[in-house]
Amino acid sequence: MVIVNGVETDAVSVRDRGLTYGDGVFRTLRAKGGRLLDWDRHYHKLVADCARIAITCPPHDEIATCVAQSARVEPDGVVKIIVTRGLGLRGYRAAENTSPTLIVIASAAPPYAAENRARGVAVRVCKTPASVQPRLAGVKTLNRLDNVLARMEWDDPGIAEGLMLDPDGNLIEGTMSNVFCVQDGTLCTPSLERCGVAGVQRDKIIEHAQRESIGLQIKAIPLTEALAADEMFVCNSLIGVWPVARLGAKRWAPGAITRALATVLSNADDGPRA
Amino acid sequence: MVIVNGVETDAVSVRDRGLTYGDGVFRTLRAKGGRLLDWDRHYHKLVADCARIAITCPPHDEIATCVAQSARVEPDGVVKIIVTRGLGLRGYRAAENTSPTLIVIASAAPPYAAENRARGVAVRVCKTPASVQPRLAGVKTLNRLDNVLARMEWDDPGIAEGLMLDPDGNLIEGTMSNVFCVQDGTLCTPSLERCGVAGVQRDKIIEHAQRESIGLQIKAIPLTEALAADEMFVCNSLIGVWPVARLGAKRWAPGAITRALATVLSNADDGPRA
Repeated sequence: MVIVNGVETDAVSVRDRGLTYGDGVFRTLRAKGGRLLDWDRHYHKLVADCARIAITCPPHDEIATCVAQSARVEPDGVVKIIVTRGLGLRGYRAAENTSPTLIVIASAAPPYAAENRARGVAVRVCKTPASVQPRLAGVKTLNRLDNVLARMEWDDPGIAEGLMLDPDGNLIEGTMSNVFCVQDGTLCTPSLERCGVAGVQRDKIIEHAQRESIGLQIKAIPLTEALAADEMFVCNSLIGVWPVARLGAKRWAPGAITRALATVLSNADDGPRA
Repeated sequence: MVIVNGVETDAVSVRDRGLTYGDGVFRTLRAKGGRLLDWDRHYHKLVADCARIAITCPPHDEIATCVAQSARVEPDGVVKIIVTRGLGLRGYRAAENTSPTLIVIASAAPPYAAENRARGVAVRVCKTPASVQPRLAGVKTLNRLDNVLARMEWDDPGIAEGLMLDPDGNLIEGTMSNVFCVQDGTLCTPSLERCGVAGVQRDKIIEHAQRESIGLQIKAIPLTEALAADEMFVCNSLIGVWPVARLGAKRWAPGAITRALATVLSNADDGPRA
């Protein structure tokens, strides 16, 4: 099911700036038993991302209504929320009275293998770098060609995720996930001040570490340093935590800190029942 | 008029990857008396840009037919061609049998002031940098948030264009144009190996300079160097050449080389009559 500005339709105008310029942001959430997992966090991230590119986010209740409607159709599926700046005529400048487009798409949950969580996954390093753009760093915008090109680099179904580096060779993220390492008991995750998307599950892990006084470093992580880590995992709102079991010649067994954090993420803050 | 995959409609699916990821490229052409200016160049650039992101460009005749139809509706207007990778379900990876979406939009010519060409324009330097992404540098993709954010930085109608720098302070381009300087009789334009869009008019000027043995350097141009230039101009397929007359405290009179190149660009290679 697709809802565009409150109406059930799967069509948008070719003049929508989301299409012409990627001028918008989005969120992807899991529903479970009709409840939207981590709803509050996703909503606040949507508001924050809209603010970063000066889009007026539609009112909470308008979004919540469409999202709940979607979760009724796919109670254990995926809900995607897109907010674009709205319609435009020509030119990068938006008219002052432009009103945003709200798109909510419900779909079935992707068929990820259950053993990914338990046994971990093989990942690769992508050649496509993450774009350096401090103005957009951390924001999940509709400008996602980096990720598309990185994901096109492999066909092997045995590789579950690709890691993206910045042009200087620092680890940034997975094509669809954030990445963490554990080094001597300290949790490390790449700084996303210059590139990358700061996901909701990354935030949850960072907050958990701070609350529980787990050592945490948010910093530049050269790939060589990541390869020397004791544990590595990727995370997002659909997969939860996948331990990284293999990267090139390097092998890891799922580590204790990774397993503990997987449990933290699986205790999602429930949203309102649809 | 809007034509989507040969059908007159202004609707595209919300599942089009052009919307969800900015997964596509585009061109903007002038029509004049029903002829498409520099059609061959634009077509070949479209094909080349599609190839850079591994989109199968629709056949020449299919595009030419829609474009000619648009030029009949707006014989002295603007024709925009968008090619996206096509429909997707979920995930950055495109299915192998994805077929591209071709969108052609005809609109009236933008109301640029005629004196911009003769007297030159005032420009400013934008705070939003151009993204560094070597994999996409030069390509006019639908990921244009940099330009949108840069264009949002000013309201003053007296400023006709904003210049964008890379994160290291090198001049890259205008928000909607390419930029050239003249230094001691040598034409200089920024290297677009790491960021920016290489437009058709920039190509025309480069080829003209090479053909006529005009000194030409394609190189990193720090903003300070550009400010010390003898002439500066911006160009694109809609505006032709606009001499830069003012940038901050710096003033220029339209220079001889700028005026000569404006004449070169105004002799556009005509395309087929619509």
